[in-house]
Amino acid sequence: MNVFIVHAHPEPKSFNGALTRHAQSVLTAQGHQVVVSDLYAMGWDPVSDRRNFVTSKDPTFFKQQQEELHAREGGGFTPAIKTELEKLLRCDVLIFQFPLWWFSFPAILKGWVDRVFAMGTIYGGGQWFDAGKLRGKRAMLSLTTGGSESIFSEVGLFGSLDQLLLPIHYGILRFTGFDVLPPFVAWSAAHVGDEGRARYLEQYGQRLVSLGTTEPLRFLPLSEYDPVTFTRRQG
Amino acid sequence: MNVFIVHAHPEPKSFNGALTRHAQSVLTAQGHQVVVSDLYAMGWDPVSDRRNFVTSKDPTFFKQQQEELHAREGGGFTPAIKTELEKLLRCDVLIFQFPLWWFSFPAILKGWVDRVFAMGTIYGGGQWFDAGKLRGKRAMLSLTTGGSESIFSEVGLFGSLDQLLLPIHYGILRFTGFDVLPPFVAWSAAHVGDEGRARYLEQYGQRLVSLGTTEPLRFLPLSEYDPVTFTRRQG
Repeated sequence: MNVFIVHAHPEPKSFNGALTRHAQSVLTAQGHQVVVSDLYAMGWDPVSDRRNFVTSKDPTFFKQQQEELHAREGGGFTPAIKTELEKLLRCDVLIFQFPLWWFSFPAILKGWVDRVFAMGTIYGGGQWFDAGKLRGKRAMLSLTTGGSESIFSEVGLFGSLDQLLLPIHYGILRFTGFDVLPPFVAWSAAHVGDEGRARYLEQYGQRLVSLGTTEPLRFLPLSEYDPVTFTRRQG
Repeated sequence: MNVFIVHAHPEPKSFNGALTRHAQSVLTAQGHQVVVSDLYAMGWDPVSDRRNFVTSKDPTFFKQQQEELHAREGGGFTPAIKTELEKLLRCDVLIFQFPLWWFSFPAILKGWVDRVFAMGTIYGGGQWFDAGKLRGKRAMLSLTTGGSESIFSEVGLFGSLDQLLLPIHYGILRFTGFDVLPPFVAWSAAHVGDEGRARYLEQYGQRLVSLGTTEPLRFLPLSEYDPVTFTRRQG
């Protein structure tokens, strides 16, 4: 398999860094190809606007989706985006490696999605969810948290992590057609000591070895929704 | 009241732009002070790392929260962040104006939060939720969506917008102590025509006039949680 890791942490010596290096070594040993976009190391610019394009459909009014459709026809994406698009379209498995910041992606990673997940190339024209352009590919979040597993539980102060990750799992990954694997979470990574972190690396290795066979999260199929109103069918 | 609008749209002539200009005019007419941070116009850099600081607590390992605590003691924030911190601490009401991108903030806005909401200044030391440092202030999201109100309903394909906004409402705004007002949503803003958008401006004006009196969203108080485990108290 071709595994694409998009890595978003400002400190190379962080535990996020250790997780990505471990993934590279485990996956390579298994015979997989691994491509890493280390967003901080690349100096990735997360701001989405006209800088995404070398072409312009409407120079008087910027509408990103319109420019994305136009760019696709004329090869109008900036080289940095074109490169990421190629990595994304080529991969069998996409992994986002990040620390949970404000219960979501660090901005540098959100802006990778904002700029790379272009209409007409990654979604659009009714190709979404189980009919998504990226169907057949798998995706997994690998994240570190400040809080413990219990504070992120249904009865915890922060509430269920599954619920907090829904905009990413469903709104980004499932939306574009990925089969979304359960996330790998290194809870309280900074507070569990070297032994705790060594255990996390081992657990992560087990998850990586079964990337191709892990049961994805379940979401309702498109067929459950009325194709005109996009609300649940009755009865 | 002092109202602080953080505005995040790449096109000044967009409907998001119209909403912010309308807010400025309505609120000013009511005698309020309005401060706007127009992130695209300011060229805001959303990437959070050592660039946030002019000081350095540990030059060998970057840990953002540690640097934030250190910066607070020694005035070590970069001028751009110091300015935003002052606007934030001075305001009575905070409004985020943005288009919903991938069911969340545009990266430029997420990175405003990542960089400005600094530990020790905006949260920390047990000061969070109803004991948050920003308690007494109000906050409201004002957003435009591509999808309709029904596609974002409980029975819609995208699911409930309330649930999708939870990481922002609870994980960012309530976390730091804000009373969070129900969001103002201009559904399918690009597809409702000039008349539909004129109606949205009028509805937004009504929301702005009642900023000080609107009933906030309800969240469980800290007292419902055990102070050691941070899980719900039994019985």
